[in-house]
Amino acid sequence: MVAESIAIQDCYGDPYSHCFGCGRNNPQGHQLKSYWHGDETAARFTPPEHYTGGVPDHVYGGLIASLFDCHGTASAAAFNQRDKGGHLEEPETLERCVTAKLEVEFLSPTPMGKELVLRGKLVDIEGRKVSVSMTLEADGLTRAQANMLAIVLPVA
Amino acid sequence: MVAESIAIQDCYGDPYSHCFGCGRNNPQGHQLKSYWHGDETAARFTPPEHYTGGVPDHVYGGLIASLFDCHGTASAAAFNQRDKGGHLEEPETLERCVTAKLEVEFLSPTPMGKELVLRGKLVDIEGRKVSVSMTLEADGLTRAQANMLAIVLPVA
Repeated sequence: MVAESIAIQDCYGDPYSHCFGCGRNNPQGHQLKSYWHGDETAARFTPPEHYTGGVPDHVYGGLIASLFDCHGTASAAAFNQRDKGGHLEEPETLERCVTAKLEVEFLSPTPMGKELVLRGKLVDIEGRKVSVSMTLEADGLTRAQANMLAIVLPVA
Repeated sequence: MVAESIAIQDCYGDPYSHCFGCGRNNPQGHQLKSYWHGDETAARFTPPEHYTGGVPDHVYGGLIASLFDCHGTASAAAFNQRDKGGHLEEPETLERCVTAKLEVEFLSPTPMGKELVLRGKLVDIEGRKVSVSMTLEADGLTRAQANMLAIVLPVA
């Protein structure tokens, strides 16, 4: 998986960069970075060892939902920007998205100690509403999938 | 809101108590506690200050999804136990649930610095499938709502 050099989240304006999951201005957070990957988006994350679910060998479902939330809003922001003819390389032009609805299906347990790969695809853009579908893989298998409806906020 | 004295999560067997969100065997986690509250369930949680969303004044959506995940599986376990005539007070009889599907709708921003109140209602039980609906309130307003399909695991 080849990533472009600029992370989508690093193109958010400063007022919108405090997210625990992906904000560069939140030093205690996960700082998830999502990138363009062809026509889709991708992100990688290896959970710290305390992010277990009920059993010690599996990743906490809440973390999986959280990663989808950050990767989904970043993907929606990038898809919206592209739809309007913009590029990540143009600073301060990326409009931030917020989540209106997130649906997560947990298909099989996600093992700890592995790098997780998130992928995002555009489903639909209608005005300020952006629909994104996502998958989360570990060890080459899809462990969870998600759909998001995101809303584009005006740039700060 | 009057809570009963035993938290649902404290009735999980030891092998299932490592969850970052609600496991008593995960000292670095949130240790969310859900309780019976009449025919429904309830939990309270005040987010630590670094759990902001994109903007500093609002709670991180991923945390909200995570709280729903833990409160939902606990609620499903309690509803399933009650359906079978059991009680939380009987140790080692509570079967753990895992999430098959979680849908979260974010209705309005959730302010930081407030206690969040989660509530859970039983929608349906069919065999080992338990459907739960939930709300999350802050300052007396519902900020998010969720639906969960949980699956009952055999007791460890």
